[in-house]
Amino acid sequence: MDKQQLIDCHNRIKPFIHNTPVLTSRLVDAMVGANLFFKCENFQKMGAFKMRGAANAIMQLSDKQRQNGVVTHSSGNFAQALSLAAQSLGVKAYIVMPSNAPQVKKDAVKEYNGHIIECEPTLAAREALTKQIQKEKRATFIHPSNDDAVILGQGTACKELLEIHQDLDYVFAPVGGGGLIAGTALAAKYFGDNCNVIGGEPFEVDDAYRSLQSGMIETNKTTNTIADGLRTQLGDRNFPIIKKNVQRIIRVKEDEIVKAMRIIWERLKIICEPSCAVAFAAILKEKEAFLGKKIGVILSGGNVDLNNLPF
Amino acid sequence: MDKQQLIDCHNRIKPFIHNTPVLTSRLVDAMVGANLFFKCENFQKMGAFKMRGAANAIMQLSDKQRQNGVVTHSSGNFAQALSLAAQSLGVKAYIVMPSNAPQVKKDAVKEYNGHIIECEPTLAAREALTKQIQKEKRATFIHPSNDDAVILGQGTACKELLEIHQDLDYVFAPVGGGGLIAGTALAAKYFGDNCNVIGGEPFEVDDAYRSLQSGMIETNKTTNTIADGLRTQLGDRNFPIIKKNVQRIIRVKEDEIVKAMRIIWERLKIICEPSCAVAFAAILKEKEAFLGKKIGVILSGGNVDLNNLPF
Repeated sequence: MDKQQLIDCHNRIKPFIHNTPVLTSRLVDAMVGANLFFKCENFQKMGAFKMRGAANAIMQLSDKQRQNGVVTHSSGNFAQALSLAAQSLGVKAYIVMPSNAPQVKKDAVKEYNGHIIECEPTLAAREALTKQIQKEKRATFIHPSNDDAVILGQGTACKELLEIHQDLDYVFAPVGGGGLIAGTALAAKYFGDNCNVIGGEPFEVDDAYRSLQSGMIETNKTTNTIADGLRTQLGDRNFPIIKKNVQRIIRVKEDEIVKAMRIIWERLKIICEPSCAVAFAAILKEKEAFLGKKIGVILSGGNVDLNNLPF
Repeated sequence: MDKQQLIDCHNRIKPFIHNTPVLTSRLVDAMVGANLFFKCENFQKMGAFKMRGAANAIMQLSDKQRQNGVVTHSSGNFAQALSLAAQSLGVKAYIVMPSNAPQVKKDAVKEYNGHIIECEPTLAAREALTKQIQKEKRATFIHPSNDDAVILGQGTACKELLEIHQDLDYVFAPVGGGGLIAGTALAAKYFGDNCNVIGGEPFEVDDAYRSLQSGMIETNKTTNTIADGLRTQLGDRNFPIIKKNVQRIIRVKEDEIVKAMRIIWERLKIICEPSCAVAFAAILKEKEAFLGKKIGVILSGGNVDLNNLPF
């Protein structure tokens, strides 16, 4: 994917996304010993960067495909993103969700007119039902992270950040399914002066860290992390981009994620979700390596269940 | 206090404050049926509008007075504000705090180099010790709300809001000691086209509501509200301004405050403190009266104890 494709993607989705604000904090900078620029995708439509990739993926479809709708399986932010992007573009979105998904997540999808189809809470059931809907409704499957159009869309957050601060030394992003970090790495390559991209990843789901070590896609045996948006797996579309363009991945512990989230809430006075705090946790963990640097941080989302907070 | 005094005050304190952002939300507007413009003083230095009044009060002192320092009694945002404003201006701040004040509040004052002097947790002890420090140190007492320089300073938040949105029909602010609502009313009078100011106040500490009814300053028998910043009393400097320039005060229940705070957290994705949610709670409560209007809301502060949340 080349520079022009990323520019075209950004122009395409602009009417459907916010150019989110960039926040700074003297106190946080003093704490880290560097200059941090927080790209606030928690203020994005539906509350997360996923709106970018979802909008781009749907806009790449043919008229015929749009008529038949789109389908995905997700119980997280991508379900909401695909629903809202589809609604904005007059397309039907089928969302396959496990029957035991929390009501708050079902409500969020319904709020954006997503059409929920419940399945047994197993991966096999989820994939089978998704395939069935692709066949029955002729709906196009959109993967939350392992899709070129999605990767490009997610990269536009970093592109916007570099349009204001072109001289960033680093950009940090959390690593889950790999769509955000891959898109971020492309944007840094095309729009930064000499900008290195580093991922933050929980130790509990460190498939991306291990994949970079081994050179092949590794899997997670368990997904026991508070960063619920990062429990997903790398894919064959985004891993090659990550391997080539991401400098390294820093792993963080669960208590480090909660501590980083708390600092963002207390100091920046904004709501971010645990997944979103992982990139900042990675900076805090190895701050000695970044003294005096200019660092962008993609704050990925702000959809958090206030009834279930870690403090 | 005339228009020029408010302009001079604003120019004076500008180097020491943020011109805070104004946020909007389509979802919140749809919920209320009006267009809301949230002036985010939770993003102000030290996390609340109080920085404005504190800075103005100290800057009005003579060189001699500055040398001797300032003193106040507060365990809330004004203690932090006076400490930070004093630190920024090279002045010593003595903060009289009850010995049982939470450690987190003491730490916040220390972070800004405020000099804490502990007293017994009674109003009499607090006032006696404050008087003693005025005498011993020749420090100037600065009241958190009943002081002309403080009132003018607090009014600059509404002035900034009206500089962007001059045609607001209403501005809502919470009512505690009365400094913010009085300053807001002056700013609305001088800088709005035809802008009415309405206060939000908890039923539990409705001294301002009752004072407007009776025409004289009423007191609160108890202060049993989650809105800890609003437990204070009106004073003889701000009440005449409020009486003349505030259209009315809408009282809200405790559960309405928590609900409003939750909507701000979930929809705007920002941290605000309970006191701060009271103005928005007042709009929600009587939203039928404001359909289609353009309404400014002063979000007064974001200093909340994450260990002690109402949800």
